[in-house]
Amino acid sequence: MTVTFYTRSGPIAKPALHDRYQTRGELILVLNCGSSSIKFALFDQLNLLAEPVWNGKVQGIGGPKPDFGETGITPYPITLDAEYPYRGALQCIRERVLARLEGRSIGVIVHRVVHGGNKYFEPVRVSADVVADLRSYIPLAPLHQPFALEAMEILLSESPTLPQVACFDTAFHRHLPDVEQRLPLPRVLCNDTGLRRYGFHGLSYAYMAVALAQRHGDLARGRTIVAHLGSGASLCALKNLSSVATTMGFSALEGLMMGTRTGSIDPGVLLYLMQVRSCSPEQVAHMLYHESGLLGVSQRSAEPRVLLACEDQDEHAAQALALYVRRIVREIGALAAVLGGLDLLVFTAGVGEHLPEIRRRVCEALEGLLGIQLNSQANQDNAPLISSVDSAVVVGVEPTNEEWMAACQAQNLLAN
Amino acid sequence: MTVTFYTRSGPIAKPALHDRYQTRGELILVLNCGSSSIKFALFDQLNLLAEPVWNGKVQGIGGPKPDFGETGITPYPITLDAEYPYRGALQCIRERVLARLEGRSIGVIVHRVVHGGNKYFEPVRVSADVVADLRSYIPLAPLHQPFALEAMEILLSESPTLPQVACFDTAFHRHLPDVEQRLPLPRVLCNDTGLRRYGFHGLSYAYMAVALAQRHGDLARGRTIVAHLGSGASLCALKNLSSVATTMGFSALEGLMMGTRTGSIDPGVLLYLMQVRSCSPEQVAHMLYHESGLLGVSQRSAEPRVLLACEDQDEHAAQALALYVRRIVREIGALAAVLGGLDLLVFTAGVGEHLPEIRRRVCEALEGLLGIQLNSQANQDNAPLISSVDSAVVVGVEPTNEEWMAACQAQNLLAN
Repeated sequence: MTVTFYTRSGPIAKPALHDRYQTRGELILVLNCGSSSIKFALFDQLNLLAEPVWNGKVQGIGGPKPDFGETGITPYPITLDAEYPYRGALQCIRERVLARLEGRSIGVIVHRVVHGGNKYFEPVRVSADVVADLRSYIPLAPLHQPFALEAMEILLSESPTLPQVACFDTAFHRHLPDVEQRLPLPRVLCNDTGLRRYGFHGLSYAYMAVALAQRHGDLARGRTIVAHLGSGASLCALKNLSSVATTMGFSALEGLMMGTRTGSIDPGVLLYLMQVRSCSPEQVAHMLYHESGLLGVSQRSAEPRVLLACEDQDEHAAQALALYVRRIVREIGALAAVLGGLDLLVFTAGVGEHLPEIRRRVCEALEGLLGIQLNSQANQDNAPLISSVDSAVVVGVEPTNEEWMAACQAQNLLAN
Repeated sequence: MTVTFYTRSGPIAKPALHDRYQTRGELILVLNCGSSSIKFALFDQLNLLAEPVWNGKVQGIGGPKPDFGETGITPYPITLDAEYPYRGALQCIRERVLARLEGRSIGVIVHRVVHGGNKYFEPVRVSADVVADLRSYIPLAPLHQPFALEAMEILLSESPTLPQVACFDTAFHRHLPDVEQRLPLPRVLCNDTGLRRYGFHGLSYAYMAVALAQRHGDLARGRTIVAHLGSGASLCALKNLSSVATTMGFSALEGLMMGTRTGSIDPGVLLYLMQVRSCSPEQVAHMLYHESGLLGVSQRSAEPRVLLACEDQDEHAAQALALYVRRIVREIGALAAVLGGLDLLVFTAGVGEHLPEIRRRVCEALEGLLGIQLNSQANQDNAPLISSVDSAVVVGVEPTNEEWMAACQAQNLLAN
């Protein structure tokens, strides 16, 4: 796949394409650090193809059985420092990456960072000051923000001269209109605390803006909704390839129902749990992030794939899937209202790319309002275009590529 | 206005119409008890017209300046028992009502009750046992449920032989599909606690189902959204005059932004306020119910009418109105998706009936998705039909009448 990389101000310079096995520039190492996993991907600076030179992940960090996986190979167990497992996991990745370099070197390490707060809306070169700023946003995303920062600090101390770049998931939504940023709370509170709707999954949506313009041309510059359906899930409404509304706002809890997260829920439920059931905020947070959503309703699995396989025999699984689909349908309706109609609907991320049955249910429910018609075979094949010729909305499937987008953004920053 | 009263099983018997000033049956006293106000309306049992024989309200109960108001007369100050102001307010209403009876008597007192829990989905004759049941639902609606119960208990002890009937705001939504009742929480928790989406403003929607069938005939039996926009606000999606989805679910906080309530808000915001800002659940509840919404964003007023008058000079007022309208537009899009399109959109309650500018903004924003076109003059006149002949959706304004609906339901119960 060849992709031209656009920013809001137009196309940017990009190295000429070479054969990826011939070009041997320095490497870009992209890290995506979660609470118990670190994903990595290596790209060639001189030949920045969307497919990485190498990629993989460490999973189960801090747990009893960490393992190391890479594309095409069954994950195998590894041993991590018991006291500092996160540092150990980073070390493990660096060692394996170094062993693969064949004389080349890492030119830059790029971090996917969840939250840029009200200050960072562009990729930034990592320094101790930047890390301190980003630490101050931990209260805004306590379950997602800390891990990339830990990696940055370890690398700053171990390899102070190696450039690091931070790319932000909030950045793509920086031009959200005021009405989509604003919370219906006392104004003074919001002014004092930075409480607003930020939006997330920005690297994914930034990639989609590039890929959809490439694939669908001018159509993608109209009224588009991208459904990023993974273990986290959100929708983004785009006009002219810019974010104009999104379902996940202040935290990673808002919007769609997810694997283990509620998504939006009546705030009165939280008050009830604390005031009547005497739950602590920590207990409620744990329930809403980790015990709810598909897992909570089905009491079986957080994975739509698993629930689809058993729903005929398991009413709870069927109810969980029905609610999951209903929440997507409702929110697509809401965003289509904001957009004033819909030209293009695109599914991406794990569920969006690989589960035709979920796409079918969502699209059939939207037939009445939006005139969507699927091509069953194309949908079954996860094809790039899955709507029929009669459909009033073009519907597509497009694999996302957050790591490559982060590499591009870093390359762009360092080139200027 | 003449209205035929339909239940789900068809039209019910109704006394023959007489001239309201000639018919002198016993009177039905409907009470709508809030935290600081009690509204009342008197209807004639033998001639149950939609317009009450007399109505009014006591406001400011428990405050420094309670007053008594009735239609067409400026409210005048009253004095209430300092220790038991609520009992005093009820006594005040009874004295004034008795003075108006002219030899007639009250045959039944009817209460609007917010929450019927998982047990009461039909109007019920009030007894000590019923009150005890309804008390057990106070934790589900602590700010709205207690007041009608207090009135019931006072009246049970003072006039034990006078029939009382309770009508429930949750009842109209009793046939909501499972997917609209279910919360995305751990199943066991919901089973144990009764946590589900109930839906509110049911007496208003029940009235609208009657009035819209009368006014719009078969059209109203299609895909209809009613926007109940008052100081509390919600939407109801109806198919064949039954509720199939609604924006206010478990509590009176969910859904649309309101005068002082947030409506739906990222649950992560509540966790942030408690975990990072150390707010207590009580502080958060007070903020979300009483300091947010239009008042919180504008820092000026909870009344759209007031904000419309000053928005040209006050950016905060304009932002509050923009968010208010956006939330309505988003949720109408969501419910239209559930309905599979829209045939009829109807505005009711204080804001819905009386503010053409709010209706205009909502409908203009929905033109792209739904093909709504307003007739400006009809909208300006608050006419029953405000869409133009070209509109893809019929748009109407219909004054609600919860008190009459409660009187009808009580009459129906006592007749059987």
